[in-house]
Amino acid sequence: MKDVASAAGVALKTVSRVVNGEPGVHPVTAERVRAAIDRLGYSRNESARMLRRGRTATIGLVIGDVADPFYSGLSRAVEDIVIEHGCLLLSGSSGEEPGRERELVETFCARRVDGLIVVPAGEDHTYLRPELEAGTPVIFADRPPGAGIDVDTVLADNVGGAVRAVRHLMGHGHHRIAFLGDAPEIFTAAERLKGYREAMGGLYDERLVSMRPPSLEGVRAALARMAALDGPPSALFTGNGRYTVTALRALAGRRVALVGFDDFELADLLDPKVSVVAQDPASMGRVAAELLFRRLRGDAGPPQHVELPVRLVARGSGELPPPA
Amino acid sequence: MKDVASAAGVALKTVSRVVNGEPGVHPVTAERVRAAIDRLGYSRNESARMLRRGRTATIGLVIGDVADPFYSGLSRAVEDIVIEHGCLLLSGSSGEEPGRERELVETFCARRVDGLIVVPAGEDHTYLRPELEAGTPVIFADRPPGAGIDVDTVLADNVGGAVRAVRHLMGHGHHRIAFLGDAPEIFTAAERLKGYREAMGGLYDERLVSMRPPSLEGVRAALARMAALDGPPSALFTGNGRYTVTALRALAGRRVALVGFDDFELADLLDPKVSVVAQDPASMGRVAAELLFRRLRGDAGPPQHVELPVRLVARGSGELPPPA
Repeated sequence: MKDVASAAGVALKTVSRVVNGEPGVHPVTAERVRAAIDRLGYSRNESARMLRRGRTATIGLVIGDVADPFYSGLSRAVEDIVIEHGCLLLSGSSGEEPGRERELVETFCARRVDGLIVVPAGEDHTYLRPELEAGTPVIFADRPPGAGIDVDTVLADNVGGAVRAVRHLMGHGHHRIAFLGDAPEIFTAAERLKGYREAMGGLYDERLVSMRPPSLEGVRAALARMAALDGPPSALFTGNGRYTVTALRALAGRRVALVGFDDFELADLLDPKVSVVAQDPASMGRVAAELLFRRLRGDAGPPQHVELPVRLVARGSGELPPPA
Repeated sequence: MKDVASAAGVALKTVSRVVNGEPGVHPVTAERVRAAIDRLGYSRNESARMLRRGRTATIGLVIGDVADPFYSGLSRAVEDIVIEHGCLLLSGSSGEEPGRERELVETFCARRVDGLIVVPAGEDHTYLRPELEAGTPVIFADRPPGAGIDVDTVLADNVGGAVRAVRHLMGHGHHRIAFLGDAPEIFTAAERLKGYREAMGGLYDERLVSMRPPSLEGVRAALARMAALDGPPSALFTGNGRYTVTALRALAGRRVALVGFDDFELADLLDPKVSVVAQDPASMGRVAAELLFRRLRGDAGPPQHVELPVRLVARGSGELPPPA
């Protein structure tokens, strides 16, 4: 600002008046100041200005991993809404580590984000209480907060989706259906197991269930173990997109009936084309971001709990009959 | 801070002294203030503190589209390095629009990021001059800045990769090789065309080249036009991951020799498995971020121009012979 003042030949206070749109500056002088600003490339220090106003026009987003297409689809949708509102999105990945989730949230809060969207990795969110009491809106997406915290949440119909996947396979003659899912500590994995169990009913056999973080070796071992059973599975239900891809890789071309939770690019280019229960990560991001801006506009109603529908997309793999 | 002062029964100035580690506070009093801070969940206003120090411990990243796996892989790698350095990453997508790229860069600069990594969408970056002169380090990744701006850049060996792809197809008996690439205004697309042209040499025929943003209809039309030529192509070289997937979808199961630039998940699960020229987006992100932190530590040497190698991965599609 000092450089602008000296370039325009005016007092520092005059530059400040022009920059902040205050009255008391002759139009010709104001024009001279603006020309000097353009010439010198001076940009207002947004941080300082925002700090005075109390709002930073920044939204924080915590996801699991930006390299996972579910999260990058969600991020992109959140970012579009945030930009529409003239704000900036700060985002970070927890890598599914509760400690890093908390660190990111606390860093965002220390930088005074106006609001937060969190896909939680941990199960204890009491550390958010001071922020919530201070009035910072927080939206949980994909997974709910831990006990004792009640805020807006946007979840997919995980139980219903799993029920539909299993019933679809049953409708094509399968009775022995395996479930390969992520670690049971992960909310969505546990919910999908619940739906699987509900739909299997009396046919439920815990030996057909494997739950752990996806790895090629792990899936291969689980499939080998199940194949050696008296009643081996004739169909697979995979608990998320990463699991579906890992299972297809482990199957190495063997044609086994399969329905996966989550759609993925190229599902329709594989042979057989892969049937899925599709949720819409972009719509989850959009709904969460819109809810956040409603809160920022002053909506102080009770916490909303939104459940987004999922849909079954039959493409071929889920319609394969059991071996004769 | 007022709440902390009243909870601890001390003056505002005392709280400020404790928070900022200034002397002149009795240890017992300081302890009482810290306990009140813990109880009330007061966190220092990082923005204000950073502003005083002149550094914000924030890095800005501009990419094309977080929903594209090339960019999300690059983002994740940048984020890992940024977090290792105790900083926070702000990122945004330009959507390949030069106006939005500039808007993001200027917003980041107004918020006083310590440094920037930019995958440019536009061709004119003279708007960066004031920031560069003010000493903010900027690294360009994937594509270089426009004329008149010389800063650190990290690019892939686009020309060399295209040459290898074409020579590989030639080695399997193809002479009529089509090139399907993105709009020629995009640096990487133009470089890959250059490599294609160089490798084709006397066999180059502009009727076998189609360059535009990828769309299923566009690729279908281009393939139909080329198939009607006197000498139709017997092989395809696709200019990026999105193009490869679009071309495979347009081919709808027809077995045509193909090498794609960029590796992609599931390339090895398709039939035939897809041969690619693979670059490593994670390594590009890592190298760019490390270069940035070297600059932040004070390295004032001349701009570095890093070219990362690419490698040909033969999986099946690139080794199909021409039709008999």
